[in-house]
Amino acid sequence: MTERSFFDSRWIERPPHVAQASTPGLPEGFRAAGVACGIKPGGVRDLGLLTCSVPAVSSAARFTRSGTLAAPVLLNTRRCRLDAIRAVVVNSGNANAATGAPGLDDAARMQGAGALAAGVPESAVAVASTGVIGVPLPIDAVMRGIADVSGQLRPDGDGDFSEAIRTTDAFAKHVCLEVALPGGSVRLTAQAKGAGMISPRFATLLCFVQTDAQLAPETCDLLLAVTAKRSFERITVDGQLSTSDTLILQCSGASGVQVAPESEAELRFGEALDVTLRQLALMIVRDGEGARRVGRVIVRGGDEDTAWRVGRSVADSSLVKTALYGGDPNWGRIVQAVGAAMPGCAPLDVDVAIEGVQVCSRGARVAHDADGLAAAVAREEVEYEIGLPGEGAQAELYFSDLGHEYVTINAEYTT
Amino acid sequence: MTERSFFDSRWIERPPHVAQASTPGLPEGFRAAGVACGIKPGGVRDLGLLTCSVPAVSSAARFTRSGTLAAPVLLNTRRCRLDAIRAVVVNSGNANAATGAPGLDDAARMQGAGALAAGVPESAVAVASTGVIGVPLPIDAVMRGIADVSGQLRPDGDGDFSEAIRTTDAFAKHVCLEVALPGGSVRLTAQAKGAGMISPRFATLLCFVQTDAQLAPETCDLLLAVTAKRSFERITVDGQLSTSDTLILQCSGASGVQVAPESEAELRFGEALDVTLRQLALMIVRDGEGARRVGRVIVRGGDEDTAWRVGRSVADSSLVKTALYGGDPNWGRIVQAVGAAMPGCAPLDVDVAIEGVQVCSRGARVAHDADGLAAAVAREEVEYEIGLPGEGAQAELYFSDLGHEYVTINAEYTT
Repeated sequence: MTERSFFDSRWIERPPHVAQASTPGLPEGFRAAGVACGIKPGGVRDLGLLTCSVPAVSSAARFTRSGTLAAPVLLNTRRCRLDAIRAVVVNSGNANAATGAPGLDDAARMQGAGALAAGVPESAVAVASTGVIGVPLPIDAVMRGIADVSGQLRPDGDGDFSEAIRTTDAFAKHVCLEVALPGGSVRLTAQAKGAGMISPRFATLLCFVQTDAQLAPETCDLLLAVTAKRSFERITVDGQLSTSDTLILQCSGASGVQVAPESEAELRFGEALDVTLRQLALMIVRDGEGARRVGRVIVRGGDEDTAWRVGRSVADSSLVKTALYGGDPNWGRIVQAVGAAMPGCAPLDVDVAIEGVQVCSRGARVAHDADGLAAAVAREEVEYEIGLPGEGAQAELYFSDLGHEYVTINAEYTT
Repeated sequence: MTERSFFDSRWIERPPHVAQASTPGLPEGFRAAGVACGIKPGGVRDLGLLTCSVPAVSSAARFTRSGTLAAPVLLNTRRCRLDAIRAVVVNSGNANAATGAPGLDDAARMQGAGALAAGVPESAVAVASTGVIGVPLPIDAVMRGIADVSGQLRPDGDGDFSEAIRTTDAFAKHVCLEVALPGGSVRLTAQAKGAGMISPRFATLLCFVQTDAQLAPETCDLLLAVTAKRSFERITVDGQLSTSDTLILQCSGASGVQVAPESEAELRFGEALDVTLRQLALMIVRDGEGARRVGRVIVRGGDEDTAWRVGRSVADSSLVKTALYGGDPNWGRIVQAVGAAMPGCAPLDVDVAIEGVQVCSRGARVAHDADGLAAAVAREEVEYEIGLPGEGAQAELYFSDLGHEYVTINAEYTT
């Protein structure tokens, strides 16, 4: 992945005012580090700290909507000022989920230690844990790790931080961008993790975003809401909803470049955030615990609810996903998944096109170039277009295939 | 499978008045056959005919609720007297689904040829097709097959018929039972197919049931409704809804033994039908396109809707299913699946027990014998019990694991 350009999907167009930064490192005001504290075997990094030196930071956050929230998520929503997050402490290898009152105590200790390490109030510290569910957090290792990591904070520590938050990810996901705004250039960096237990409809996975642009907390929240909906809420690997998913945007304002509401700067910054989160979301789908191919399904027609239900039914269909893995243009399975999402609607005038090749019109097969289609679905990205009767709605989802590697990863390891 | 007793699951108790028949063959009045007509390669059986010689037959049927119904299902609901089905014509290797108006014509031709072959009116013939979706039915082969099979009808042709309806099934699923009723003994036979594209909430798969007991059409319908709900609507292999699923019960009445409404005979016959369909349903889950293990999840507490939604979320979770395949007592994934089905309910006081071992109480891990649990989940049937806050509801579902064989079958073949 590292040799590829960050914006490497044909589905994402880089705006001209967004460019990969020529020098590495976090935006002004931020420092980060990642260390190995011993939760994961083999001495790999499993604890990260990210801090902002600017007291007037503004931030926004989104969390999983699971009914069985992990302790750190519960703690953040209860004891953290989400519009003014200055530090983030994250461990991988253990989700601190289904751990009851002791788990909440551990999350609080993480928050307290993070506050000491970052030199900020406890309420300015967000915590996150990712990994196995239902195992007590090895809190002593975490506390040692926080003490250790606080001495290693660096302006270019985002790479190590990004390593420290990985679980089953095959590759680290982070980026460093320059965004040209009318008032000057700002920096936008992001680190994400996620490969399995990924489902749409919710802000999934872990993703941390930093900028030195100056945004009011309300602007921060609005932009995060809109861009999360267009990125992480549109992806699925396995239709499974994590207990731990966390997305945080922090703005130090240290560049002095303001992003005012309804300004050209807001539009441009929003576009930059949008493509960044969408590309990271796609990278997570591509990682997809052994995924070979990524699909995009676009549903047009019908009402909003139906279009999204059909889109999710296709994107989460194990038959569609195994066909994608096998490079099989098995459009009958698409029809099956559409029908499953629309019980009682038969006969249904559904249209299906794969890679622009119309294969089904008004519910019935149409003659097409089967060889050309077979070649098209063997590529890395495959596009499915579904037309439903009626006007109006449009849903769009990205999904990974389902292959042997997914089974191996999830049958052989306790994750 | 053939060496095992039919009732071989610890989850199904054979009532004392139900026994496997000592002699093979269909109930009085029925004949069947299965031939190879050339839809499937290799000269294997792919066309079946089953007829009843009694004009006063009573019957009942259930079909998939897919919005993209296969042509035979549409035809049955439009042009077949479902309470008086005398003949059933079935092909495998092609689902005649997403085939439009030509597909409906083909289904009608199948019905017409079936009527000729069985010597009954067209409206007394039900048709069924199972196999690949979106490929035109090779109707000439089917017509030749129907002409061929009509000369081979035999009272003990249910084995060949059962072979002819198979698709990816690893083994044929059929049974021949004697049921002792107060008025005398009746015979109950059934043939089923199904391994993939199996989901609860609907009458899934193909299953044909015959008896020489005498039932009014209303009784027939009532008993089928109740028993389908307790069997085929409680199973899932891959959460995928077929376009073709069909369940038909035919009663010839030839034994002269009456099953009157609200009688002891109805109770006993209903019990026999219940265990038969439940065992067949379990066999389909066990077949489950390469399944190694079968799970049962019982959800207690909450309201009906929530209990079933949680049950389905667990039974269809690719993470729970890969853990089952791997023999991994990964109860954190159960908690995850419960949380996904109950967004916004955190913190949730959920209890989880696996094979009777309590692993999670009120949302948090409880100490347990991990080694004993690991041994228990390595067996062929694994039971998961989930407790939700509140009184009352109970949901029960059976599901297969997700392993390499499922991926191989569904990635490498167009099914």
